[in-house]
Amino acid sequence: MRDFSRDHCWLSINTATVRKSRGVDLPLPQIIEACARRGIRAIAPWRDQVAAAGLDTIARLVKTHGLELSGYCRGGMFPAADARGRQEARDDNRRAVDEACELQAPCLVLVVGGLPGALAGKAAHKDIALARTQVHDGIAELLDYAQSMRMPLAIEPLHPMYAADRACINTLEQALDVCDELDPQAPGSSGRAALGVAVDVYHVWWDPKLQAQIERAGRRRLLAFHVCDWLTPTTDLLNDRGMMGDGVIDIPRIRGWVEGQGFDGYSEVEIFSSRNWWQQDHGQVLDTCIQRHRTAV
Amino acid sequence: MRDFSRDHCWLSINTATVRKSRGVDLPLPQIIEACARRGIRAIAPWRDQVAAAGLDTIARLVKTHGLELSGYCRGGMFPAADARGRQEARDDNRRAVDEACELQAPCLVLVVGGLPGALAGKAAHKDIALARTQVHDGIAELLDYAQSMRMPLAIEPLHPMYAADRACINTLEQALDVCDELDPQAPGSSGRAALGVAVDVYHVWWDPKLQAQIERAGRRRLLAFHVCDWLTPTTDLLNDRGMMGDGVIDIPRIRGWVEGQGFDGYSEVEIFSSRNWWQQDHGQVLDTCIQRHRTAV
Repeated sequence: MRDFSRDHCWLSINTATVRKSRGVDLPLPQIIEACARRGIRAIAPWRDQVAAAGLDTIARLVKTHGLELSGYCRGGMFPAADARGRQEARDDNRRAVDEACELQAPCLVLVVGGLPGALAGKAAHKDIALARTQVHDGIAELLDYAQSMRMPLAIEPLHPMYAADRACINTLEQALDVCDELDPQAPGSSGRAALGVAVDVYHVWWDPKLQAQIERAGRRRLLAFHVCDWLTPTTDLLNDRGMMGDGVIDIPRIRGWVEGQGFDGYSEVEIFSSRNWWQQDHGQVLDTCIQRHRTAV
Repeated sequence: MRDFSRDHCWLSINTATVRKSRGVDLPLPQIIEACARRGIRAIAPWRDQVAAAGLDTIARLVKTHGLELSGYCRGGMFPAADARGRQEARDDNRRAVDEACELQAPCLVLVVGGLPGALAGKAAHKDIALARTQVHDGIAELLDYAQSMRMPLAIEPLHPMYAADRACINTLEQALDVCDELDPQAPGSSGRAALGVAVDVYHVWWDPKLQAQIERAGRRRLLAFHVCDWLTPTTDLLNDRGMMGDGVIDIPRIRGWVEGQGFDGYSEVEIFSSRNWWQQDHGQVLDTCIQRHRTAV
């Protein structure tokens, strides 16, 4: 397991972590500059932030500052109530692949979607098996395109509390079942799989099968590793994630399992925190990420 | 699958559902009387409510009104930070078995506990594997006593969002693994297992392996069936559960799977709802439970 205590060369900042500074939206160019000033070598930007600043601008800034991406957030949201909705998702996901290529991301992260309409509070139906079928078919189709563009897809299993509205792939086992079906591995094959997973400790830490499934994933399928912490109590299902070390997740243990498979990429900090970190100055938040990366990850 | 549309003879009320009426604590004797007046045949009372009214009083009221129990809530909370804490849990769980016997409950429901101290916001450690070992050992010890008293124990897997503070058994598969290890089934054995599960749709509806694990459980291990609904959005991790029909859970489908195994017990309504149902008059809440039992379960 790598020693993170001496520097932060394996730290990446998911840009949602500093989406707001003192409660005010922070444009992506400022986030990039604040990261670069601190010697942070990698980021994982969100599409809406990229779109607001312009893809060309962000691509140039990333290059100017010599930054890498640890992933691109995000594609997915496959299920829809009708054929038109699914077509829109298909088109949008191809654009996400194109953008990820432009930014030279190592993978496009997929948050696969749940029951259509549920995110807006009006689920079109209650058939989660159907949603899962549409996710399966959507990934299958996108994978063809992504492979032609040489962009790996990373399925991010989300915590089961998001099954209705954000992602109906909720365990690493389930994600890997999809990977194995759509992208069977050649025995002894090496390198990065075309279809793999993003392991975010927040979503999977509770899983009694986590260690076994990380071992099953192996190096080829482990495309991204995200960290934050689970607070007790957690006051909001989406936006009350904790800074590493402030919660109950044994992050080093999980990182050890992931690195035990040969993962040698960035540890990406992704914190949604409307009541705490988004209310603070983004410079202080980044400084705290650096410090906790060294002591709590 | 039984037809629930004509009456509510298989409806049970978990008494937490009407723990408050118009925001004010409602004593268990009043809950019992309100249920009995409506022809509700079964309840599942909570220990704190029983203790407040007196065990003898409740036992007598249950008998007077000809009520059955669909379960007794609850034992568990096995992990502790030290030996003294574990001894206290052991003693308290034996008392819970005794009370369940006195009330002629069909099973004692176990909410097994999580990281010691996490419920109070100060986890003593982050080792969920250790907590799970203590849960395993605690159930093993309690099972000896419960079997001597002929009181079945029903492990209730809780939603993974409660893994830290309430229960580190989070899937039906995990619960059944414990059952199979501690209470191996004799081939062809019938009747009720000494150690089984309580299936609450709120906790398990998201699980892609739910149907398979219900089939694995079989009639012997299916000791209780709880219903409510998952709201989108959900505004509180604990106390924002929905009335059946108001959320996204396909309850009839899950009931079909459970009854497909031969389950023929009560459908127990357990709703924690600080912002909605606990603010309404308990009579209206019970009337709504009856109506939804007939139309949405």
